[in-house]
Amino acid sequence: MRTYRLRRPEIVAEEAPVPEPGPGEVLVRVHAASLNKRDLLILDGTYSLPARPGVIPVSDGAGEVVAAGPGVTRFRVGDRVVGSYWPRWHDGRLRPELVDQPGCTSDGMLTEYALLGEQAAVAVPEHLSWAEAATLPCAALTAWTSLTGGGKPLPGRTVVTLGTGSVSLFAVQLARLLGCQVIVTTSRAGNADRLKELGADHVIDYTATPDWSRRVRELTGGQGADLVVDTAGPATIDQSVRAAALYGEVVVLITRDATSDRLEIFHEAYASSLATLRRVFVGHRTDLEDLCAAVSAHGLRPVIDRAFTDVQAAYRHFREGSPFGKVVIELGPA
Amino acid sequence: MRTYRLRRPEIVAEEAPVPEPGPGEVLVRVHAASLNKRDLLILDGTYSLPARPGVIPVSDGAGEVVAAGPGVTRFRVGDRVVGSYWPRWHDGRLRPELVDQPGCTSDGMLTEYALLGEQAAVAVPEHLSWAEAATLPCAALTAWTSLTGGGKPLPGRTVVTLGTGSVSLFAVQLARLLGCQVIVTTSRAGNADRLKELGADHVIDYTATPDWSRRVRELTGGQGADLVVDTAGPATIDQSVRAAALYGEVVVLITRDATSDRLEIFHEAYASSLATLRRVFVGHRTDLEDLCAAVSAHGLRPVIDRAFTDVQAAYRHFREGSPFGKVVIELGPA
Amino acid sequence: MRTYRLRRPEIVAEEAPVPEPGPGEVLVRVHAASLNKRDLLILDGTYSLPARPGVIPVSDGAGEVVAAGPGVTRFRVGDRVVGSYWPRWHDGRLRPELVDQPGCTSDGMLTEYALLGEQAAVAVPEHLSWAEAATLPCAALTAWTSLTGGGKPLPGRTVVTLGTGSVSLFAVQLARLLGCQVIVTTSRAGNADRLKELGADHVIDYTATPDWSRRVRELTGGQGADLVVDTAGPATIDQSVRAAALYGEVVVLITRDATSDRLEIFHEAYASSLATLRRVFVGHRTDLEDLCAAVSAHGLRPVIDRAFTDVQAAYRHFREGSPFGKVVIELGPA
Amino acid sequence: MRTYRLRRPEIVAEEAPVPEPGPGEVLVRVHAASLNKRDLLILDGTYSLPARPGVIPVSDGAGEVVAAGPGVTRFRVGDRVVGSYWPRWHDGRLRPELVDQPGCTSDGMLTEYALLGEQAAVAVPEHLSWAEAATLPCAALTAWTSLTGGGKPLPGRTVVTLGTGSVSLFAVQLARLLGCQVIVTTSRAGNADRLKELGADHVIDYTATPDWSRRVRELTGGQGADLVVDTAGPATIDQSVRAAALYGEVVVLITRDATSDRLEIFHEAYASSLATLRRVFVGHRTDLEDLCAAVSAHGLRPVIDRAFTDVQAAYRHFREGSPFGKVVIELGPA
Repeated sequence: MRTYRLRRPEIVAEEAPVPEPGPGEVLVRVHAASLNKRDLLILDGTYSLPARPGVIPVSDGAGEVVAAGPGVTRFRVGDRVVGSYWPRWHDGRLRPELVDQPGCTSDGMLTEYALLGEQAAVAVPEHLSWAEAATLPCAALTAWTSLTGGGKPLPGRTVVTLGTGSVSLFAVQLARLLGCQVIVTTSRAGNADRLKELGADHVIDYTATPDWSRRVRELTGGQGADLVVDTAGPATIDQSVRAAALYGEVVVLITRDATSDRLEIFHEAYASSLATLRRVFVGHRTDLEDLCAAVSAHGLRPVIDRAFTDVQAAYRHFREGSPFGKVVIELGPA
Repeated sequence: MRTYRLRRPEIVAEEAPVPEPGPGEVLVRVHAASLNKRDLLILDGTYSLPARPGVIPVSDGAGEVVAAGPGVTRFRVGDRVVGSYWPRWHDGRLRPELVDQPGCTSDGMLTEYALLGEQAAVAVPEHLSWAEAATLPCAALTAWTSLTGGGKPLPGRTVVTLGTGSVSLFAVQLARLLGCQVIVTTSRAGNADRLKELGADHVIDYTATPDWSRRVRELTGGQGADLVVDTAGPATIDQSVRAAALYGEVVVLITRDATSDRLEIFHEAYASSLATLRRVFVGHRTDLEDLCAAVSAHGLRPVIDRAFTDVQAAYRHFREGSPFGKVVIELGPA
Repeated sequence: MRTYRLRRPEIVAEEAPVPEPGPGEVLVRVHAASLNKRDLLILDGTYSLPARPGVIPVSDGAGEVVAAGPGVTRFRVGDRVVGSYWPRWHDGRLRPELVDQPGCTSDGMLTEYALLGEQAAVAVPEHLSWAEAATLPCAALTAWTSLTGGGKPLPGRTVVTLGTGSVSLFAVQLARLLGCQVIVTTSRAGNADRLKELGADHVIDYTATPDWSRRVRELTGGQGADLVVDTAGPATIDQSVRAAALYGEVVVLITRDATSDRLEIFHEAYASSLATLRRVFVGHRTDLEDLCAAVSAHGLRPVIDRAFTDVQAAYRHFREGSPFGKVVIELGPA
Repeated sequence: MRTYRLRRPEIVAEEAPVPEPGPGEVLVRVHAASLNKRDLLILDGTYSLPARPGVIPVSDGAGEVVAAGPGVTRFRVGDRVVGSYWPRWHDGRLRPELVDQPGCTSDGMLTEYALLGEQAAVAVPEHLSWAEAATLPCAALTAWTSLTGGGKPLPGRTVVTLGTGSVSLFAVQLARLLGCQVIVTTSRAGNADRLKELGADHVIDYTATPDWSRRVRELTGGQGADLVVDTAGPATIDQSVRAAALYGEVVVLITRDATSDRLEIFHEAYASSLATLRRVFVGHRTDLEDLCAAVSAHGLRPVIDRAFTDVQAAYRHFREGSPFGKVVIELGPA
């Protein structure tokens, strides 16, 4: 089979024998993988966890179970699955002992055949293509737990998302699906129509309106947003905190960027919203199952920017191409 | 103004002066009221709380604020409101000291002008007519808290509702709105189409299938329903408990009927589901506000069976007419 | 080594080689086991899950890790552990696929050496003897999740427990430790002093006061108890529901007894308390860890009725001896 | 009666007639009041809410109900009560419309007779003196909601508190009462013994150990603290975040100090703990009732530094005297 391995500064294609599933494992014929920012950081050596040299990259992949090892009961040959971002974190609270990330500390999904512990795999919604299914484990789940991991996600709440990164796009779609009013900030006015198609009720151009929290307050009758999904961190946290309703929530996903290694939260902003700052690091397997149930129930279709068969081209496009939606790698044969 | 008063065994129309709002009160020109089972029980003298003789009947009414007493800040003249079922229960847990029910222990909404404490009124969704708005305080809110008052109401969950009473119809609509899979039992096969229009995914004829819990398990891949909204009690609790998933929930709304004064729950049924039995008694004001936000967000329209201007005719139809949807009394002039 | 096996209608001692821990397993030198009602039911063939013939009996045992298989990271040789009642249920909600019970569907702890998956073992509080540690997995954890599995277990709440079974005794001790006011019912007036030593604030003789819910209301200023831990079921559920505060909780542990196969809940009782009926089936591994942390923090000591080295004698005493506290079997060191 | 009024820059004693309770109000003979930092800020004109000129100062006071207006049902003459910090916030989530603070936007408790809405008063534990009872509404409740307002406050958790301010002292006492392991930082080594008497398991001198989060990790087997109650803000938030366990909680009470108007949270610190930052602004009336129940259950006694009858002396000592415990003003019995 063809597989890929992290040989920094490159990802290298190799031929390898198809592995055999051991006890409790399934062998998955991977049909599609999708890229996330962390995959670039791992390739660049700047990710927060050190990657194992030679590891198979990429956390997100979808495929078909083609063999099951002894004792497997959750899946059968033919089942369509994705691998969980945290294969050892099934439910409850993350513990240090459960930290293990495919595509980084253990083998990932950029390979024609992957071995997964059966507890680390989740069945995917039937209506999704392989490419669509491959987008769920990291970006979609991050958006999902951002929206549902705090207070009850009741319809009618107001959610703010920032920009057009993949987590934000999923947050727009999922917040709409949850019946929330969705306000999106973006610097590209040209994106407004696409964001509205995905579910945005209001799009704010943050270049034209740098003090966009004020606009959020206007749009919410002065109350502010119940939840802000902050995907940018240092550059946006101040406005995010100002945009939040009294005792609202700000989900913090990023805490450094190219120009800053910290969040600065001003008394003046924070004293009025008293928002909870909640961190999200993707989510556990039960969250992923809940996401899949919600995606199925509403027939949601992830946004795919482009699919590649060439791994290098996919990484390059993801890094430089300003994609709107997920960048997918097809591991064919189709 | 015309007002109505409970003079058992009748409801009597009377002329009275329009009242003046005191401190913290609003005067509401009531345009529509809607009937609930408890209004029949109060009239019949069989309700669990003793009614004050001469009380203005009916908990549910919607109208326009036409005057505001000193110190009122939540509403202005012209606002469209409903009264809360529990005017003194605003949030948190119900306490005995907060027990007060309009149309029973205090004056209700079957009157052209009603006085409400401003804390007991809630603004209604803009897209609703007066008749539609008048259906929210009791039946719709009961369905809402049944669905949202326990675990997080995530899309993709399975909900079972029983029959075509008003709480059940709202539960179907609201469960659909929440993205749930909805299974409804009914004895009238002719209702299946209307239930499916409202959002039911599956309709089970419980006359043909008295052991309907088995069918629920089939429809859920053997898992059972995450939530059963049991609106019948003694006759259905056994099947409801059997239909619930492991550690699922059964909301218990009724605990006696014409033939039984108790719930019987068999070991054989309960040992396998371990379902939580959760009681719901309508809900507090914040719940009602949350419901209104959800109804607005999704543009939900309540099902109205028929609207009357004749109070006696309305009560008669509600009691004998097997309505499908709410029975409304218009207090016009429009 | 000496081990015991279920050869109904007996438990038979056998000699067997000490097993080797496989990947992810630890080998535990079991020093003490403790008996629970379910162990009698399993022996009698009346437990709700069918037992595997020849299975090693008993869920509860404590011992020392003497060897660790490949890949074990949670424990080291010398660690003192108990096995979890549900070895596969680590956190979150119980699923059918996780159902596996040592001493019933898989080998239990009545053996000198037991193999445990490392994820199924939990370190025990340092201050406990082997016999004391062996009491935690089933009865103590059931009491713990009864007290902490619903609303927040705040000090000052009132808890009612029934009788002097092991779950009830732990519930008394743990409720006291949580700062709750504890009311206990018992038929044996002679137990009152011991119950008060364990933490009971009030003891009600239910033979003298069959309508004991009334007494609970008196003791709580008319409010009723925040939580009733009902360990008897058919015979007590009516009084338990009546004893509960408005929107309080009744934990239901038992749903049949020698004379009834059902719970009967009367409208008259249930309409006034609106209590949630919550089922508890022991608890997951994280619950067990939380229990151990609480036991350590407060230096709680379980009540042991008597310890045996003779297995048959222990079973006999547990069945016939009306123990007050846990019956323990010592398995070593010899 | 003697009353005090805010005539900045002073608090001025005045004689005034004893007021009459209106509908729903009780008249309270205030016996003791206690000072909080906000009372200094209000006097200095630097508090976040603008104070009403001439307002009666001080939020915290305890006294006896001496008269009840029409319709009062919660209290009777002779009842011992405190006023709630947020008289209009009874339960649920704080809303802008409920913002009203005695001693700032409305009359407070530094007066021999105070009028309270009956919904704004709470009965105090019997074992407390007037001076002790007067310490509960602000500092003690802030500590209580810090400890209990997030995840379940289970025994065995580790809590870190900072310094010897009143909120921190209550947090030590209440955390101990909840069965938590308590770690306190302080710069005054001489305080260690008193802190240990109050319940601290470990005291860290943060002058000697500026990187005290490392010590917290050592004391918790590398896990970090489940909860950090950060009472200092800009100067401590970095260490607080570093001290928190994975997905632990940091309660943020202060967001500016004499030298900084912001919190700075570094990626390096925050990426490893992923702690939730939760804001606490005292708490609602139901929280205060829960606190009183806990204080009663455990017989907790607040720490009083010193009681004064001279208001100016009390303010001066509170500002300059480095009190250890609450500063109380006695207003009675005269």
